[in-house]
Amino acid sequence: MCSLENEFSIHKSQQLNASIDAGQFSGSTEFILINDHRTNKYRHRQQQVIVNDKNENFCHNYVRKIFRKKILHKRLPILQWLPKYNRDDAIGDLIAGITVGLTVVSQGLAYSNVAGLPTQFGLYGSFMGCFVYVLLGTCKDSTVGSTAVASLLTYQVAKGVWEKAVLLTFLTGLIEIFMAIFRLGFLVDFVSGPVSAGFTSAVALIVCTSQVKNILGVQSEGSSFLQRWISMLKDIKSVRVNDAVLGICCVTILLGMRILGKLQIGPKVQDEQNWKQKCINKTLWFIGVTRNATLVITCTVITMYLELQGKHYFKLTGNVPEGLPSIALPPFSIASHPPNDTYSIPSEVGDENFLDMVESLGYGLIIVPVIAMLENISACKAFAKGKAIDATQELFAIGVANVANSLFQGYRANSGLARSAVNNASGVRTPLANLYIGLMVMLALVYLAKYFYYIPLSLLGAIIISAVIFQVQYNAIKPMWRSKRSDLLLSFLAFIACLVMPLEIGILVAIGVNLLFILYHSAKPKITLETMMQTLDGLKFLKITPDRCLIFPSAEFVRNLILKSGCQTSLPVVIDCTYIYGSDYTAAKVISSIVDDFKRRQHKIVFFNLKPSVAHIFEGLNTRLILCYDVDSLTYELKNPNSYHSNDHIVYEDNNSNNTMINTIPLNKK
Amino acid sequence: MCSLENEFSIHKSQQLNASIDAGQFSGSTEFILINDHRTNKYRHRQQQVIVNDKNENFCHNYVRKIFRKKILHKRLPILQWLPKYNRDDAIGDLIAGITVGLTVVSQGLAYSNVAGLPTQFGLYGSFMGCFVYVLLGTCKDSTVGSTAVASLLTYQVAKGVWEKAVLLTFLTGLIEIFMAIFRLGFLVDFVSGPVSAGFTSAVALIVCTSQVKNILGVQSEGSSFLQRWISMLKDIKSVRVNDAVLGICCVTILLGMRILGKLQIGPKVQDEQNWKQKCINKTLWFIGVTRNATLVITCTVITMYLELQGKHYFKLTGNVPEGLPSIALPPFSIASHPPNDTYSIPSEVGDENFLDMVESLGYGLIIVPVIAMLENISACKAFAKGKAIDATQELFAIGVANVANSLFQGYRANSGLARSAVNNASGVRTPLANLYIGLMVMLALVYLAKYFYYIPLSLLGAIIISAVIFQVQYNAIKPMWRSKRSDLLLSFLAFIACLVMPLEIGILVAIGVNLLFILYHSAKPKITLETMMQTLDGLKFLKITPDRCLIFPSAEFVRNLILKSGCQTSLPVVIDCTYIYGSDYTAAKVISSIVDDFKRRQHKIVFFNLKPSVAHIFEGLNTRLILCYDVDSLTYELKNPNSYHSNDHIVYEDNNSNNTMINTIPLNKK
Repeated sequence: MCSLENEFSIHKSQQLNASIDAGQFSGSTEFILINDHRTNKYRHRQQQVIVNDKNENFCHNYVRKIFRKKILHKRLPILQWLPKYNRDDAIGDLIAGITVGLTVVSQGLAYSNVAGLPTQFGLYGSFMGCFVYVLLGTCKDSTVGSTAVASLLTYQVAKGVWEKAVLLTFLTGLIEIFMAIFRLGFLVDFVSGPVSAGFTSAVALIVCTSQVKNILGVQSEGSSFLQRWISMLKDIKSVRVNDAVLGICCVTILLGMRILGKLQIGPKVQDEQNWKQKCINKTLWFIGVTRNATLVITCTVITMYLELQGKHYFKLTGNVPEGLPSIALPPFSIASHPPNDTYSIPSEVGDENFLDMVESLGYGLIIVPVIAMLENISACKAFAKGKAIDATQELFAIGVANVANSLFQGYRANSGLARSAVNNASGVRTPLANLYIGLMVMLALVYLAKYFYYIPLSLLGAIIISAVIFQVQYNAIKPMWRSKRSDLLLSFLAFIACLVMPLEIGILVAIGVNLLFILYHSAKPKITLETMMQTLDGLKFLKITPDRCLIFPSAEFVRNLILKSGCQTSLPVVIDCTYIYGSDYTAAKVISSIVDDFKRRQHKIVFFNLKPSVAHIFEGLNTRLILCYDVDSLTYELKNPNSYHSNDHIVYEDNNSNNTMINTIPLNKK
Repeated sequence: MCSLENEFSIHKSQQLNASIDAGQFSGSTEFILINDHRTNKYRHRQQQVIVNDKNENFCHNYVRKIFRKKILHKRLPILQWLPKYNRDDAIGDLIAGITVGLTVVSQGLAYSNVAGLPTQFGLYGSFMGCFVYVLLGTCKDSTVGSTAVASLLTYQVAKGVWEKAVLLTFLTGLIEIFMAIFRLGFLVDFVSGPVSAGFTSAVALIVCTSQVKNILGVQSEGSSFLQRWISMLKDIKSVRVNDAVLGICCVTILLGMRILGKLQIGPKVQDEQNWKQKCINKTLWFIGVTRNATLVITCTVITMYLELQGKHYFKLTGNVPEGLPSIALPPFSIASHPPNDTYSIPSEVGDENFLDMVESLGYGLIIVPVIAMLENISACKAFAKGKAIDATQELFAIGVANVANSLFQGYRANSGLARSAVNNASGVRTPLANLYIGLMVMLALVYLAKYFYYIPLSLLGAIIISAVIFQVQYNAIKPMWRSKRSDLLLSFLAFIACLVMPLEIGILVAIGVNLLFILYHSAKPKITLETMMQTLDGLKFLKITPDRCLIFPSAEFVRNLILKSGCQTSLPVVIDCTYIYGSDYTAAKVISSIVDDFKRRQHKIVFFNLKPSVAHIFEGLNTRLILCYDVDSLTYELKNPNSYHSNDHIVYEDNNSNNTMINTIPLNKK
């Protein structure tokens, strides 16, 4: 999936030979397998080599040049869009960049709370990634910054130690680059929609819970949802009333502004609105998308005023170091009393060397990249409008972005669905919008850091709550119910598992259960048994049709079924192998034992339409199979009682075949 | 697989309506799915209910009686064969029982060495299991006793502590009964042939290694093959020459006698031999199968004579407590200094309560039953001669046998391939042979225990080596190479993993890798792309055929491929869904996005031959699909350009259909 462009080439077979049979679809009698995407790649190269032989060096160089340019365009997508960049693009990107930038700055401050890190770390992680994404990103709507999922996972894995958070960012970035190089992006496909929905919902609830703490001003400890609520309820007596009131007001205002932003006056179709209506709608929309920034500025001005008057009503963010972070390698060890610790919260851990730190990150090193990629791809897909997504390149971009982030003491960043939606709605045209976002974050760090002191913590909590509450996937319940109920069950399992267990264990458990479904599925094929009759000759036979490939978990099941039904009838048995597209040694042994058994009982067993690749596997055990590939030969074989004793396996091929491939001619062919 | 009899009912559809079309196979146009084996079971019950309603109580009772009798016969197989038991059966069983009994006694003594337990434990575990198997066993050739695999696993898991070995036997017995009740026997299907071959070969080598220690008289410690060899080489200076010579001689003699037993003089077909030849052949065969017992008796007599003369040439077995073990619950805790420890080797562990013991057994509690079942089933299969095996009942029998064993301080027992082969060759007729085997073991314990003192340890080692050396599966290499090479690779992986890691971890790793193959497989379907032409109307279309079910790991891959090939053509796209037998919510979302995208581009996409169950899943997301089930409707649909705008999904069904099921009519239908 991650490497479609290279690994698959379309095999077109235009069969234009006018068939004498009126009304027959030509081409449908042939069975062309794109055997393996690697094989095809190889074939593709072979074809190129042939071209080279013909046209000598000129052509050779030309082809190589094209090839290189294509790869370069794939790996540096900026080369695709920058040459065509025009004024409209510039305006669109600037507006979108500033709009999203306002959100990113306010959310960046807030999410560092979720990650359990000092406030500035959210902003430290929100500019380098943007710059990298301008160069490497493929999706114009994506913006790289902190998200709820990434922040929560960082908290769970790094336990609020900034050194570990930065090292996690660095290592997971490297792992993502590694995964991109070795095309391991397909791993993300093993997280199904239902599991992902359950996980996202659980994350939303957990993040909300963690922010209720900031709003109420109570203590809340523990690594799982339940533990946090219990600890919060225990401490309910120490609620800070001012903060709670402010927080609840802020959530209400933010939700109200969000609704306001979605209001539309006048006709629904934009073209039918007059300029007044358009103007009002645009203003409403702008109020909606800048609600976070507006509220932060308003609240900060009010609290500054109150503080200067000596009225300490609210719990504030506190000191945030001014200026940009210095460029440095991520910390590869932790000293218990760092000599130059400039950060407000000292690390509360003892000496740890690199291996200790890696060990404590544990599963997180695998889970974080996979989940980050899941978030990233789903953000890309939401606005891809049917374009295929280059998952490998996205993975690479996010990997490099995070390595760059970690050099500026930032923590995990990737693109998020909510932010991409704002970006899209603001009329973004290219990934260049990320440049403006990054610049705004840097400006905020340089010029606004001294004002961050006055931002009330419960406001930041309110911003997060009003953002993540819409990530609870209750909308997915109904379609899942209608589509496949076992998937709904799975989704609930993922949801509950992520709530009651530590997040990274919960998602692993859910994925594991989901994969067990596939394995169980492969062990229990559906098998159709039909007694058939050939009307002209009056030949009867028992047709057994397994519906999928015959591999080890299902081999015994199929064996028992064939033996059982074979014993109950004296009719010849025909195994219709049309649907068997693969097999293995275990199944070959089973087939061999079945054939031996039928031979002993002088009972005829015929394999109909067995693919040559599978027949090769079966015959590796010296099994003598009776193979038929069309109805005439099947009829002949069923009439001829002597072929049991034949020592060679018998193949009947279709005489009308005009290619070497085996035809899939169904039984009801005339 | 374990529950075939109940869970599957054959769906026969005899279509005898004479078709006007000459030569057409009737019935093949219909597509009957045995949807789910559970559903069928349910249907079966429903049918019974209908019978009850018709014929009132008499029938009701009759059906119930039949049902009960059938179940009883299934669960107590002795009821099937005992009523028909005759003199021939009795003679056959007696001869086989005595022959195998001689092997079991000598092997039982030897295998307790492999399990790291005092000599008598092998015999303690070899009689109750036999008695249970007479009642519950389904396979006449199986005999329950200690095997190399079970002994080695017991050693690995219980680490030579007899209390743990007995507890392991008890708990795994209970787990087997549990697995039988909940029909979890299918778990064994997830161990493929190649993994099993690699594992068995590794076990053979490890067991050989452990016995080389007894023969050479050197020390050998460690849990894996490598560790043992290293430790043995370190101690090579302390080789006991007498033991080594005796051991090597014994192995040579045993292998020689084995070859002798396979010799045949005169014609190959038994009926053509005269009575002299028959007599000689029988004698040779008898020498072959009783080689262990013969050698044990001979050697013991010699060493007794030497010992009585005061010549202590060989390391001997030492004291073996006389008499039968007392019946008692297995030990649920270990005291560091047990007050009445009657066994020669004191436990070298500290106080442990039940939970400590269970924890130290660990994975073993799952691996041991699965492997034991694997061994059992393969022994049954080898002589089943095409009869289906009731794996559930076998699992139940072995579970009860081991619980019974553990009450007499025996360790794990199950049937082994080598012993079953002797049983089969000795002319066994029913499981009653197990009775004689059990009785012989009891007699040996009561009357022969005092002589066991004189059995040289290196003789026991030689017996095991000459038995397990033939379990190295070198014979499987060639067929695997010819059949499927990746399976050969897997087999080597299992072999190496079991040698270098602790056995139970090694097999888990190999099984895990094998399952990853299946998962990868499910993520990468093969997709055929063909440009087709309808010759009469000149309609062209792109046909895309995925070759297996569309579920989450493959959904993205299919999406990208369809979108990509859709963008490259202006022809209508037909997805041939003949091979898609299942789907899920994730795939439904993907299909929905594909359909939306094609609609936006005013590009036609038609789903051909999509199974109703899968269509239901896709349409759960309110996706409007254009469904065609025959060629005429497909032609009509491809000609009609307006159906994009239709708001309802369109279904074209085959008008000639004579049942409510959907027809699988291939494209080349006339």
